[in-house]
Amino acid sequence: MLEKWQVLSSRAAFSSRWLRIRQDAVRLPNGMELDDYFVVEQYDFVKIFAYTDAGDVVFVRQYKHGAAQVILELPAGFVEHGEDPGQAAVRELREETGYAGELRKVAEWEVDPTRTPTIEHLYFGRAALTGKQELDDSEDIEVVLIPAKDLVRHIEGGDISAMSSVAAALYCLPLIG
Amino acid sequence: MLEKWQVLSSRAAFSSRWLRIRQDAVRLPNGMELDDYFVVEQYDFVKIFAYTDAGDVVFVRQYKHGAAQVILELPAGFVEHGEDPGQAAVRELREETGYAGELRKVAEWEVDPTRTPTIEHLYFGRAALTGKQELDDSEDIEVVLIPAKDLVRHIEGGDISAMSSVAAALYCLPLIG
Repeated sequence: MLEKWQVLSSRAAFSSRWLRIRQDAVRLPNGMELDDYFVVEQYDFVKIFAYTDAGDVVFVRQYKHGAAQVILELPAGFVEHGEDPGQAAVRELREETGYAGELRKVAEWEVDPTRTPTIEHLYFGRAALTGKQELDDSEDIEVVLIPAKDLVRHIEGGDISAMSSVAAALYCLPLIG
Repeated sequence: MLEKWQVLSSRAAFSSRWLRIRQDAVRLPNGMELDDYFVVEQYDFVKIFAYTDAGDVVFVRQYKHGAAQVILELPAGFVEHGEDPGQAAVRELREETGYAGELRKVAEWEVDPTRTPTIEHLYFGRAALTGKQELDDSEDIEVVLIPAKDLVRHIEGGDISAMSSVAAALYCLPLIG
């Protein structure tokens, strides 16, 4: 029987607006103690798989400084404190792409259970262009429409290579009615 | 045209054996400057989709302290400095499960491009039980065989909910010959 570890003490080891590191001292079920298990704390996020009447899926392309490269991925964003994930999904899709539609939650996944409690909420639905992008000063985002029938080929070819977009695209493709 | 951000300066904001936080001061293409973009640095990792002659896929179940819960996922592990990812995949599969086989690399994905340069190397292949688990004192891992034909149902039902395992399972299922 697998048991949870017991947390003996916990302290903030690093803190910034977007990212915190928590240092836990823990006792394992076998009695072993570790005094420096570091957990990354950040906002949960939403990922959006939106498709048009024409059968295209709405992607975004932007520079991501973590990977230090331009990345093609599904729209996504952080869930701010107290915000409903469904509202965050609608907001992020509209702000990043100008698309809007009826989105429904189809999955909830652990982003990296070794390192963080962060959750990804996956939203899916039909959408249409209804307005303009509303970007922050730090954002420069190109909207890219990819035919749903070509998605697997783009993943196999490596054009779509961000893990959360691969997971979301392969999971949502069969859901398109 | 999307451009890279220019790094003006860079310093270690937090450092531990498994995890480092780098603080970059950056200049965006539009001239805007940010002095506190935090990047998480850690080892790259390997993920292994191994299946048996009987059509089962080798999963592991263990407590993960980041998520603070018991998680069912594909075998995985860090690539130690200087180690070949293919060797790391063979080693992790053997140590965590006792299975061994011919593995080939089938994908390379960015784990979270917003936050980190970390890469996941995905390995795939047929494997068989050839020995015993070789676990660290801090590890308690149950090997779980899941029929390949049931994987999608387990993902839809939420039994398999770690994002990297969802991505790897949905990507590798069609590769089984």
